[in-house]
Amino acid sequence: PLPWSEEGRLAVRVSDRFSAANEGELLLHPPSLILGVGLERGAPASLLLDHVARTLENEGLARASLAAVATLDLKGDEPAVAALGLPLRLFDAAALDRIEVPNPSPTVAAAVGTASVAEAAALAAAGEGAVLAVPKRIGQRATCAVARFAPPKGRLTVAGIGPGAPAMRTAEVEAAIAYASDIVGYGPYLDLVADLTGAKRCHRLAIGKENERAELALRLARAGRAVVLLASGDAGIYALAGLALELSGGAVPVTVLPGISAMQAASAKAGAPLGHDFSVISLSDLLTPLETIRARVEAAAAADFVIAFYNPASRERRRPLEEALAIIARYRDPETPVVRARNLGRRDELVTVETLAGLDREAVDMTTVLIVGNSQTTVIAGRVVTPRGYSS
Amino acid sequence: PLPWSEEGRLAVRVSDRFSAANEGELLLHPPSLILGVGLERGAPASLLLDHVARTLENEGLARASLAAVATLDLKGDEPAVAALGLPLRLFDAAALDRIEVPNPSPTVAAAVGTASVAEAAALAAAGEGAVLAVPKRIGQRATCAVARFAPPKGRLTVAGIGPGAPAMRTAEVEAAIAYASDIVGYGPYLDLVADLTGAKRCHRLAIGKENERAELALRLARAGRAVVLLASGDAGIYALAGLALELSGGAVPVTVLPGISAMQAASAKAGAPLGHDFSVISLSDLLTPLETIRARVEAAAAADFVIAFYNPASRERRRPLEEALAIIARYRDPETPVVRARNLGRRDELVTVETLAGLDREAVDMTTVLIVGNSQTTVIAGRVVTPRGYSS
Repeated sequence: PLPWSEEGRLAVRVSDRFSAANEGELLLHPPSLILGVGLERGAPASLLLDHVARTLENEGLARASLAAVATLDLKGDEPAVAALGLPLRLFDAAALDRIEVPNPSPTVAAAVGTASVAEAAALAAAGEGAVLAVPKRIGQRATCAVARFAPPKGRLTVAGIGPGAPAMRTAEVEAAIAYASDIVGYGPYLDLVADLTGAKRCHRLAIGKENERAELALRLARAGRAVVLLASGDAGIYALAGLALELSGGAVPVTVLPGISAMQAASAKAGAPLGHDFSVISLSDLLTPLETIRARVEAAAAADFVIAFYNPASRERRRPLEEALAIIARYRDPETPVVRARNLGRRDELVTVETLAGLDREAVDMTTVLIVGNSQTTVIAGRVVTPRGYSS
Repeated sequence: PLPWSEEGRLAVRVSDRFSAANEGELLLHPPSLILGVGLERGAPASLLLDHVARTLENEGLARASLAAVATLDLKGDEPAVAALGLPLRLFDAAALDRIEVPNPSPTVAAAVGTASVAEAAALAAAGEGAVLAVPKRIGQRATCAVARFAPPKGRLTVAGIGPGAPAMRTAEVEAAIAYASDIVGYGPYLDLVADLTGAKRCHRLAIGKENERAELALRLARAGRAVVLLASGDAGIYALAGLALELSGGAVPVTVLPGISAMQAASAKAGAPLGHDFSVISLSDLLTPLETIRARVEAAAAADFVIAFYNPASRERRRPLEEALAIIARYRDPETPVVRARNLGRRDELVTVETLAGLDREAVDMTTVLIVGNSQTTVIAGRVVTPRGYSS
């Protein structure tokens, strides 16, 4: 990928249309076209070459973009075809006759057993999804047509970049970003992968605009771009993977790449509090009714799950956290270890080990993940451990 | 790290002890010793050089391992000290007097204000944890002693290598393996990181020997080795991190590195079934009573958690799975999507989307992770999605 800037004064243009390059521009002609030809046996090379050259000129196409010439197998040894100096693709009449073309000819069909040579051969060689850039043009003793390869298919990768530190990213997430054309994300997430995005098109959207982010990413992918939609932590855990899949409706290939989630990073820093059965609960009541949240906290507390809380509180929203802690207090010892982790993997990272009774509730905010131990969770030399087995 | 083999015929030996190299051996003397000297003002260089040479010879130490000479600041300009040709470390009498030594001298204390010069200076320069390799040796008009740096401190890193594919490993896990001296793990886990272990000492232990693996890793770390203990998936989720922390008792620094867990990999491949609140339950009743497992499944099913099952069944152990499915069937629609994932990230990976009623139970084994959707989980174009919000 090359550097790209809205204000850039030097540009690379890639096009199979013929034109002069503009000032400060490098014009590249990709090998995106297949020339199809039909010709009478023994037609002079000059006639075919002239006809092809005139056709390309009339249509404004670059000869440098011709990847190959395609024709009927019987014409493979015609000197005029060889004179084009292009790689040769040959098809038998039966194969060509199966190709749907705009301008079939009964005369041709009667003569060689396929209703189209130039159009059919060009389309056959250009493969699935190809379209005719130039339908059949009839010249002296020769016809030609031009097919264009299918446009590159767009794709969307929803990638979990982990909590923030580059060291916690997976190789496949880094590769997805490296090979993408467009990166869509909340600004601070883009900053966390600035070492990988370089000159890519980065689309910075605001927090809270999850729908807009997913929709923009899908729109870009539908337009043929290779798009990465960034998620913090794991893309599939309270993140954008589900939303992108819902909105895509299967129209664009969507890949989901997991990342180290906040609760995993918090658990590792604190020891191993997630060492046995656990429940993960979001305390955000924006999209989930408070009764549902309450019922889940109650169920998890009663069944002695370790509990990881996401979105535990914002400046305004304190009630779900207070209620959750009150529910848990009815089932667990006040000395139950609680891990409070803020800004994981980032500059101001803070992981503290407190207790259910001693938790600094005021310090719990949007960037916090809480892990509440179960009845077996203990602190060993400062590290929080939930044993794998139940001591009898 | 250099290649290492039990049968190797070429060797590198690193030692500060003097000896001739054996056949097929490269002997390296690390700069691990500090020479401490005390001497009378104006003592001839030859006396000090002879005394030091004789002492090293008697003690079997290599002169090439002397990193520096240390003495009292007042002796820093003595020609005999300079004649040693070693980097010079000087300390004032007050600093030396604070160092505890085996052979203090009241005479020296009266003369220069510290009871020890040679021993104290050597220990002071060699830093925390250093020990005397040679206590004070008295020669003509000079004394010397030798301190050895503290041995390298051992450390244990419990690292989650993800489900199996190198692309799903994190950078910090790869770095930990790259910088380790010893890798301890179940054989197939070691195979999964064979691209990183090269010539390291790999300790392959059998499955089921979790305690032995953790204990060996800790023993090696206590002996000063840089040890990585491998865990599949996330080191802290039903893996060895907790066990290692329990057994270490804080005696060795233990670092836990998370990895992509099996449920995350399964979720990503299938879509985003873990997109809202979920519970993670191990169905192994080896260490957890079956009643506890039942109660947790019941709680998670009733509170509409998505449920990820680890260790769902082995060849012999089918009952917990059958009971769990029966419990869930009382709360959820038979058409609830179920993701069945086997051998994630490995050669025979298989991820299928079935239903609660249609699950191929016979195919569930030790290498399987199951994810059972909640009431909102749907299948969109073949992908399983649990929406982030509750549709009203």
